[in-house]
Parts: sequence; structure tokens; C-alpha cells
Amino acid sequence: MSETRRIELRGEPVAGGKLPLVCAPLVGRTRDEVLAELAAILPKRPDLLEWRVDFFDGIGDTAAVVDLAATIQRVAGETPLLFTRRSSREGGEPIALGEQQVIELHRAVCASRCCDLVDWELGSAPDDLRRVREETRAAGILLVASFHDFERTPPLEVLADRFAAAERAGADIAKVAVMPRSPEDVLTLLQATARARRELRIPLISMSMGAYGSLTRLVGWVFGSAVTFAVGKAGSAPGQIPIEDVNAVIDLLQRSMRGPP
Amino acid sequence: MSETRRIELRGEPVAGGKLPLVCAPLVGRTRDEVLAELAAILPKRPDLLEWRVDFFDGIGDTAAVVDLAATIQRVAGETPLLFTRRSSREGGEPIALGEQQVIELHRAVCASRCCDLVDWELGSAPDDLRRVREETRAAGILLVASFHDFERTPPLEVLADRFAAAERAGADIAKVAVMPRSPEDVLTLLQATARARRELRIPLISMSMGAYGSLTRLVGWVFGSAVTFAVGKAGSAPGQIPIEDVNAVIDLLQRSMRGPP
Repeated sequence: MSETRRIELRGEPVAGGKLPLVCAPLVGRTRDEVLAELAAILPKRPDLLEWRVDFFDGIGDTAAVVDLAATIQRVAGETPLLFTRRSSREGGEPIALGEQQVIELHRAVCASRCCDLVDWELGSAPDDLRRVREETRAAGILLVASFHDFERTPPLEVLADRFAAAERAGADIAKVAVMPRSPEDVLTLLQATARARRELRIPLISMSMGAYGSLTRLVGWVFGSAVTFAVGKAGSAPGQIPIEDVNAVIDLLQRSMRGPP
Repeated sequence: MSETRRIELRGEPVAGGKLPLVCAPLVGRTRDEVLAELAAILPKRPDLLEWRVDFFDGIGDTAAVVDLAATIQRVAGETPLLFTRRSSREGGEPIALGEQQVIELHRAVCASRCCDLVDWELGSAPDDLRRVREETRAAGILLVASFHDFERTPPLEVLADRFAAAERAGADIAKVAVMPRSPEDVLTLLQATARARRELRIPLISMSMGAYGSLTRLVGWVFGSAVTFAVGKAGSAPGQIPIEDVNAVIDLLQRSMRGPP
């Protein structure tokens, strides 16, 4: 059986190979809010931080973005930083920037190496995806190629194709997040994840969102997801559970799974 | 979407309709051991007790079995009692009784109404199943028709057929418990449960056992299982988790599922 692949940074598995990594989002509107969030979250010891820059009022000021990302990195110490602009099309906050300005922003962020991973959507223009791919690679930053559907869960074949498309595009990590309309949809997402684990070589991140999907944030790692997103101070997507609770349940399951057969 | 059906006893949903019911097994070898187990478990407030009579050294003494079952019932008060002889073929303890003696034992237990539910295996002789069906019905006792595979997880179609066979046989509740050999097998069991919830009219109990299956003891209710078996003092099957932990995780999930979308 295939093993859930770990995310490696500079040749070392993140958080010593812990599975899954618990990632806390930063969703403040201002520099002060983001830094206050960070200060509240760090004592909960997330394994990864995601800065959702689409929530940041200063997103139009490249120098302010780079400076804040660098500050987060410095304050976070060993905890890697994932830099994410979620498009409004895929559930993010509306921003005033055009797509070419967003590309420019990512170029500046990569050039200054003020993050460790960058999220870029598979649904973006192929040329843009290639360009971000080149910039992350040149900077030694990992590229997470992501697919989100906040309305529904596409069929198994479509989900399998989205995971595979991320690998084909040269991403270091494939991420799929979809909304279930029934408990069966939750199983479809987990099946697609297990299949991608068998068929692909790169690490995966997956989750089913919303109420029914909550359980995937606790058990998705059993099926191949290397990361679970959990609430540090405020959530960034429906169905997220507080870090402390996610850690407690994963610890319980891992103890049960190691226990007498 | 279909709702997970609750188990009703004498016209009332058990434990006020709580979902899932948490069932603690009693697996003592002697009367003293069983009663000590019961005393240790009751403060943990299980919703259901299962006496696994195949563990009981006195199983050959019908009067001793009926008397102990009646004592458990009296001590347990409102908590219903499920009476289960698991055959060694389906993972139970070896016993010295022949099948006709086991039938006689069940006749005596039903006649004295010293339990609230009886488990009987679908894989037993059809005539025996019918007879137990008649005796439970006459006594107002619920019949759980069960299927276990401690070696593997049969394909989805086979599992679906086992659930349906329980309903066809006139059971009040259908139970399916199987061993996974991969995480995908766990999804197959949950899919079969979700399908049985759509297609059948009776309540369901299902679980995937062992290490990978542990998670179904926490999330199976989302897909249609009305009962989860948890460790009170000692487990009765691989993968069972302590009652306190099961309750904590289910409570967390239910809060997450009710939370902001």
C-alpha cells in the first residue's frame, strides 16, 4: 500500500515528517491584525502557516506585502510560510489587482524569498502558471498547484484529473478542496485522494469543506493528505476546526491505529 | 438526503434519539467479572450495553445466563441490553455448545425478556434465523441481524447485499462489520452504509475494524450507522476506542457541523 508522502523543504521533511502537518491561516486585513493573529497562533504550534494575502488591505503595495511576509517568516522562525492569493473565483476575497499585477506581486515575493511555499491555482492561465512555476523553482520555493470548488464535489474522474494536472504542471504539491452536497461526496473526495496517492509522485493536500466535510480535516491524512488546515485564531474556509481539537483527534486516532490489532 | 435512522424500543428512540448510540461490550468470563465490568462502565454512561455471552464460562448453564442477563438489566436501569453470542466463525470465542443448544439458550433468553435486543448472524441456518426472529418478535425484543468478516472487506455489492439480506430476513436492525486491508476498504464500508441508508427502511450498524477502520467508529454515524461500539473496560473487537474519547470526538464533529457554514 502507498504511504502518504511528506512535504520536504530544503531536503528535510517539514516538522520532522509529522503527518499530517497542521496549517493555520492568517486572514488579518491590516499588518497589525496579521501580526496579532500570528502572535495568538504561534503558541498553538502549527506546523505550517498560510498567509492569505487576498484578505490583506495592502495587497496593492508590493513593498508592504514583501515586508510583512518577511516579518511573518522572521517571527515564525522554523515554521514554514505558505503564501496564498486565493482568487474570488475559487472562494477568495475580492481584490483590486488585475491578474498581471498579481503575477508581478508573486515575482517580487519569490525574488525576495519571503515565503517557503506558494499556492497558485490550476485554473489560472497556463502561461501564468508556468511563470509562477519558474519563479518558485528559481527561488527554491515549493509550488502548491490548487483546485477549489466551493459549490459542489465534481465526479471522481474529474478530481483524479485535477490531482494529476498539478503533477503534470510541475507543481511540488497538489491541492484539491471541494464542497460536498452529501456524505457520499465526502467519500468521493477521499477516494480521489487515495487514488492520487497510488498514481502520483508528489505530496497531496485535500479536503472536503463545510459541515459534512469537517471529518476530512481529521481523517484525510489516512487517505493521503499531507496537510490539514485548522483554525488558529480565525478560519479561512468553511468547516475548519480549531488546532487544539484537530491535534487531539489525530493523536487519538494514531494511538488507536498503533494499538493492539 | 436520507437521515440516519434511530433505533426505537417500545415506541421510543433509545437515549432520546442520540446519534450515534455508544455501545459498550461486556466480555467477562465469570459472573463476578461481568458485574465488575458493568460497575466500571456504567459511570461512563454508555447508551447501550452488549453482553458478549460467548466470553462467559457459564454459557452452558441456561439458568445462569438468564439470571445474569436479568441482573445486568436491573443494574443498568434505563440502558438497554443487547444479547450477543458471536460465533467463532465470525470472530467470537469458541464455546462448547452445539448450534441447537445455542438456539435453545436464545429461546430461554427471549422467553424471560432478560434483554432488549438480540444479535443473530445472517450466516446461520435460515431456519434458525427464522426461529430467533419469531422468538424475539413474540417477546418484543429487537433483532439485530449481523454479518462479520474478520479477514477482509468484501466488494461494495456484497456489503450492500448483506445489509439488504438483514431487512429481507425481517430483522429490526442490520449490522455489518468487516476488516479493511487498505484505507480504500474503509471507504467501501462507508459507501455501502450510505447506500443502505438510502435503500433500506431499518436502522443500520456498521464499522470497519482494526487500525485503518478505527476512524469509522468516530465518523460512521455521518454515513448511516446508528451505533458505535466503544471500549468501556475492555474491548470486544479490534480498533475499538475508549467511550470517553469516542464521545469527545463525536461531540467535536457535531459542533463543527452545526457551526458557521
